[in-house]
Amino acid sequence: MSDASDLPVDEPVGTPGHAVRTLADVNEDALLAEILPVFATGPAALLGPGDDTAVLATTGGSVIATTDTMVRDRDWRDAWSSGRDVGAKVVAQNLADIAAMGGRPTGVLVTVVADPATTVEWVLEVTRGIAAACQESHVAVLGGDLSSAPPGTLMVSITALGSLDGRPPVLRRGARPGDVVAVCGTLGLAAAGWRLLESGREDEDTQAVALQRCPCPPLAQGPLAATAGATSMLDLSDGLLRDATRVARASGVRLALDGSALAPDIRRITPVLGPDLARECVLAGGEEHALLATFPCGIRLPAGWRALGVVEQGDGVTIDGVAEKPRGWDHFSP
Amino acid sequence: MSDASDLPVDEPVGTPGHAVRTLADVNEDALLAEILPVFATGPAALLGPGDDTAVLATTGGSVIATTDTMVRDRDWRDAWSSGRDVGAKVVAQNLADIAAMGGRPTGVLVTVVADPATTVEWVLEVTRGIAAACQESHVAVLGGDLSSAPPGTLMVSITALGSLDGRPPVLRRGARPGDVVAVCGTLGLAAAGWRLLESGREDEDTQAVALQRCPCPPLAQGPLAATAGATSMLDLSDGLLRDATRVARASGVRLALDGSALAPDIRRITPVLGPDLARECVLAGGEEHALLATFPCGIRLPAGWRALGVVEQGDGVTIDGVAEKPRGWDHFSP
Repeated sequence: MSDASDLPVDEPVGTPGHAVRTLADVNEDALLAEILPVFATGPAALLGPGDDTAVLATTGGSVIATTDTMVRDRDWRDAWSSGRDVGAKVVAQNLADIAAMGGRPTGVLVTVVADPATTVEWVLEVTRGIAAACQESHVAVLGGDLSSAPPGTLMVSITALGSLDGRPPVLRRGARPGDVVAVCGTLGLAAAGWRLLESGREDEDTQAVALQRCPCPPLAQGPLAATAGATSMLDLSDGLLRDATRVARASGVRLALDGSALAPDIRRITPVLGPDLARECVLAGGEEHALLATFPCGIRLPAGWRALGVVEQGDGVTIDGVAEKPRGWDHFSP
Repeated sequence: MSDASDLPVDEPVGTPGHAVRTLADVNEDALLAEILPVFATGPAALLGPGDDTAVLATTGGSVIATTDTMVRDRDWRDAWSSGRDVGAKVVAQNLADIAAMGGRPTGVLVTVVADPATTVEWVLEVTRGIAAACQESHVAVLGGDLSSAPPGTLMVSITALGSLDGRPPVLRRGARPGDVVAVCGTLGLAAAGWRLLESGREDEDTQAVALQRCPCPPLAQGPLAATAGATSMLDLSDGLLRDATRVARASGVRLALDGSALAPDIRRITPVLGPDLARECVLAGGEEHALLATFPCGIRLPAGWRALGVVEQGDGVTIDGVAEKPRGWDHFSP
């Protein structure tokens, strides 16, 4: 099988003895007939793809729902990410949101909007990436939509559904003065990977580059943190400062972070990017999808979590007492 | 307020004394602060927009889910449709799928992927169209996603969630020989409206043109048909022949339609398009979003439904005994 990352999607090239098919060469039904068998459904899918809607089993009288989209040349570059990477990454981003509520993902819907010049193989690679990521988390692929797009446009969108299993959701607005601020997962590595890819130095930190290509959110830790009593939680998608500021604002509190708690994260990245860029990656780097939560003072943090600071009366985010501006990723004004 | 249909989206023009804002002029949080107050939530939304996920109440231990996307210059043209039309249409298409399962829509998630040169006003018009269509059907807007896109690209995607209220879903595969084939809603009008808009004759049939700009699916008839015993159902999104063929294939039967039952629909369109194009609109015109269902022989059709033919042993779709090829809309090979 050819490596989709080597196929320029909008300029399909032939390989000897094997014509490259594009979406314009196949009709929608034929394409679906290739895609659907790749997806698994699982017990929560009372009805999978193929009808007007899917039917998903729910528990506890509610379903949680979120949606997140990746657009080529905004959220990924073909030169850096294979179709499989893109499929796995868009699933991971969505499931991280489910986990950040303390939820368990149960099903996803997939939308692909693609220039008809897109190769069928690229779409199948996305499909395989989505299928593998869903299967790993026992999530059903419930259905989706295929649409054509203007030349050069390619996007993959996921809606993820999940269950709280009877627990209340862990919101952004529950942090209280005295709580401990804690994180589960790495900080700044995905952003470091992006900088290495951009400067052609992807061999210098393969872990960071792999996390940029596809984050690995600690999904099971979401429900565990909820059970442990987390008072607020979100996943770090737009940078530590920007996301921490969201918790601070929603809860009406200040998140006072310890520089010393962030020092190991900065040191981890310093050898490849230097101390200043490393600090910027840790504080403002997006797409990490670690979980940030607050826990009542005095409880033992669940295994895998580490304290970053405390919640205080006030507003905003400080590091060692110094107010930090909420910087990070913005879709329209980057 | 300016009419969004008059604003070329990728070439914003100034109006005297009022600078046209584009998405590049506002950050994501500021844009959300304008969008979110337009949306209503309602009692099914246990948690609305603003956190990592929404929480939607479910009944009967399941949720039904579907997703459908509109892409500019594929699914609408700015010259024909205002942002409000686009918002209302993408909601209608999705809710029609919910109705076609016999379901009641409860919530939607909204994704807008837009060139940063898109005007804020256009996005707000889409928002208003979505909000109005959802409010009319008591559907909560649960949240969504905003992403930037390459120049010229604009798309709006909806995921709709709904409830079966304890009934089994009405699938495409339940039609049985002897059943009556029936439709609720108009046939071919949206396609006729498209042809009139394309030839600059939109004044000649304002009902058809209005239905092309925004379909009006008989949403309440979905659950009513289910209660009345419908054995199969779908909404007509890709044309009568193509969609009827889907029922025939899924059920392993033939749908034998009566030419005389379709004659009034063809006559309705003939004055503006002539008999041949009128027939083509009725048989193959997409985006109508009427409901097509089969009912057991001998039951009285629910009010608003009319018989189009019968289900027979065999395969495919016939009109007056003559096999018809499944033609209609295909996204990649139109």
